[in-house]
Amino acid sequence: MSPENEQTGATGPSGGTGSPVPLPTARDRRARTALSFLADPGDQALGWLLRALTPSEVLAAVSAGADSDAVLLGGHQRVPGLRKAVQRWRARLGLLPSPARLATWYDHGLRLLCPGDAEWPTQLDDLGDARPLVLWAQGSADLRYACLSSVSVVGARAASAYGQHVATELAAALAERGCTVVSGGAYGIDSAAHRGALAAEGLTVAVLASGLCYGYPRGHHDLFAAVAAQGTLVSECPPDHAPTRPGFLIRNRIIAALSRGTVVVEAALRSGALNTAKHARELCRPLMAVPGPVTSEQSAGCHELIREWDAVLVTGARDVAGLICPEGCEPLGPRLGPAVPRDDLDPVMTAVLEAVPARGGRGPASIAMMAGVDLDTALRSLGLLAAAGFVQRCEKGWRLRGTG
Amino acid sequence: MSPENEQTGATGPSGGTGSPVPLPTARDRRARTALSFLADPGDQALGWLLRALTPSEVLAAVSAGADSDAVLLGGHQRVPGLRKAVQRWRARLGLLPSPARLATWYDHGLRLLCPGDAEWPTQLDDLGDARPLVLWAQGSADLRYACLSSVSVVGARAASAYGQHVATELAAALAERGCTVVSGGAYGIDSAAHRGALAAEGLTVAVLASGLCYGYPRGHHDLFAAVAAQGTLVSECPPDHAPTRPGFLIRNRIIAALSRGTVVVEAALRSGALNTAKHARELCRPLMAVPGPVTSEQSAGCHELIREWDAVLVTGARDVAGLICPEGCEPLGPRLGPAVPRDDLDPVMTAVLEAVPARGGRGPASIAMMAGVDLDTALRSLGLLAAAGFVQRCEKGWRLRGTG
Repeated sequence: MSPENEQTGATGPSGGTGSPVPLPTARDRRARTALSFLADPGDQALGWLLRALTPSEVLAAVSAGADSDAVLLGGHQRVPGLRKAVQRWRARLGLLPSPARLATWYDHGLRLLCPGDAEWPTQLDDLGDARPLVLWAQGSADLRYACLSSVSVVGARAASAYGQHVATELAAALAERGCTVVSGGAYGIDSAAHRGALAAEGLTVAVLASGLCYGYPRGHHDLFAAVAAQGTLVSECPPDHAPTRPGFLIRNRIIAALSRGTVVVEAALRSGALNTAKHARELCRPLMAVPGPVTSEQSAGCHELIREWDAVLVTGARDVAGLICPEGCEPLGPRLGPAVPRDDLDPVMTAVLEAVPARGGRGPASIAMMAGVDLDTALRSLGLLAAAGFVQRCEKGWRLRGTG
Repeated sequence: MSPENEQTGATGPSGGTGSPVPLPTARDRRARTALSFLADPGDQALGWLLRALTPSEVLAAVSAGADSDAVLLGGHQRVPGLRKAVQRWRARLGLLPSPARLATWYDHGLRLLCPGDAEWPTQLDDLGDARPLVLWAQGSADLRYACLSSVSVVGARAASAYGQHVATELAAALAERGCTVVSGGAYGIDSAAHRGALAAEGLTVAVLASGLCYGYPRGHHDLFAAVAAQGTLVSECPPDHAPTRPGFLIRNRIIAALSRGTVVVEAALRSGALNTAKHARELCRPLMAVPGPVTSEQSAGCHELIREWDAVLVTGARDVAGLICPEGCEPLGPRLGPAVPRDDLDPVMTAVLEAVPARGGRGPASIAMMAGVDLDTALRSLGLLAAAGFVQRCEKGWRLRGTG
């Protein structure tokens, strides 16, 4: 578990966040990597624990056995499932990869990314406790750079010819505008989206639910090779892990968080793509859906999203670009913390921002009143301010985005 | 001009409006009929004039020549175009039909309807000054009864096979639920909607832009015969009048006003169907649109309506019924003034209604605050209250619906 040592002491992530994340120490990198073999992706208990302890402290206590339970369970009795989680992690200590095995993967071109690394996409921090521990990446593109201006294009595996056509065209048109297309590497809409971006010689990122060496679905071996050659493959799973059924849903949060907005191209009423849509909504990222014939079950999920006002209807790349980078922003520019200096906001946006409290939260209706604008304007401005990193949704409405 | 005399003195319109319209006198019926031959459909100047004068007074002053101009122009100097309008009406006095000609039409099965008649659909009164002077009707169904529970299904003449299929299925399913399908009798979506309702043995109403004897488009002679046999043909134009280009757009207000909501099935970006949609919006009737493939130009207008939140996306009769008669209302029941007694509203609706001012208008954000509900709830409640006839949109937001 050594090659990341070289990176320790490198300069911090360049480009814009107000409060730079501290560079990961070699010890913490090793600990994070080890924990990623012990805990399942998206393990909530581990996420909670890492609020109070460093990865090294957690790993040491897990490795030391039951005597160290006080360290893990001490102040965290209320974390649901923590005791069972610790038992689970401990039972897997034998699965930790040897340094030689890790070296094989690095030799194979895989990169291990930790929070604070230059290539770590900081927008993943929006996931809070559910932020991936580490990411494995493979491919020619720098993940952070690729995702600065990106859109997730997702949809059903059982896609229709119409859906695949639309996904391909949409991805190609987005790629031509310099926008990276993020998707899940699955059959159907996902692969059509990757292929559209590749055909337009654009960047594309495939977030797999399996480890990168496992490469599920196997039938996409050639597609994954093409994505790696022109973009990046990503997974939070150890490289040799097979996908698990819950793993697909858990992976979806990364697809939603990596990009500036998510487009559902085709989805039946219970499609997994709607889970990605849910994550996008929860992350306050614009959620878009492509309509289709009402006679097609494959579009029923998209129609439901639009009818319930969960998603905005989009018919092409132009609509998507309009929502991702509305007037005044540079087209699909970088998103690293606040994308626009506060002084550059127009008077309306400034007024709305002024009305958003730092703590507690305030509803959009009150914000509109305080800002002296109509509600539509307030809602639109809040969406833009959220996308630009100034504000975030909370239980009571909206508040300023914390630095934490 | 005599057969309507028989109807004078009949009992007033039964069924529900708070302020019953006085029964038309024989003299006013004759005057209205005559004026409908002198003024174009939707003549704004005449609408204004009829606020202050009876139809008989207007007709008498028009017939008496320039000496009576004081009566017409006296207190109404500010009505735009009134003087020219009076000249126009006067120039057409020679076109008034002889009693024999009128008798021919009555013999032909045509009925002349005036405001206050038992068969007059009172929801047309929502059109204010633009309310039709008279309506000619032909067919087996009572127009007022047929339109108590009705939906307008409209769309492009240049419809795709998909659009015609959807319109037919939607109309048939609505008809099966006991809902009358209103449309414009045109080629494409209109005729598919009429045919769907006919196939389901339901009621359908065709509002023509030509006179009923002219029957435009001529190619729909058989369709119109079928509609008359099973439903009703309607027109505000004198029976022998050919359609005029502006007449199609002016006719659309009647389609929107007759029904409880309008569904646009297919419409290109500049389709005339979008004009009907505009009227439905202005009348605070629910506006719905059916999505289609984004690759089809015939659905682009529908997608635009949905994307801009002007219309709600619907995929079938179930969605339409859900919007036209939300929970708590009887399915597609009568709509005659407020559809629900105020005391029957639930506490949330009551709170929202309490927050709507009688004059001036208030924005939805303020209404939500005053009612102590979140904005989504307020907007949904306002939509329902509007559909139920309690409130209406205005420049400053929403206000209570006037009795005038």
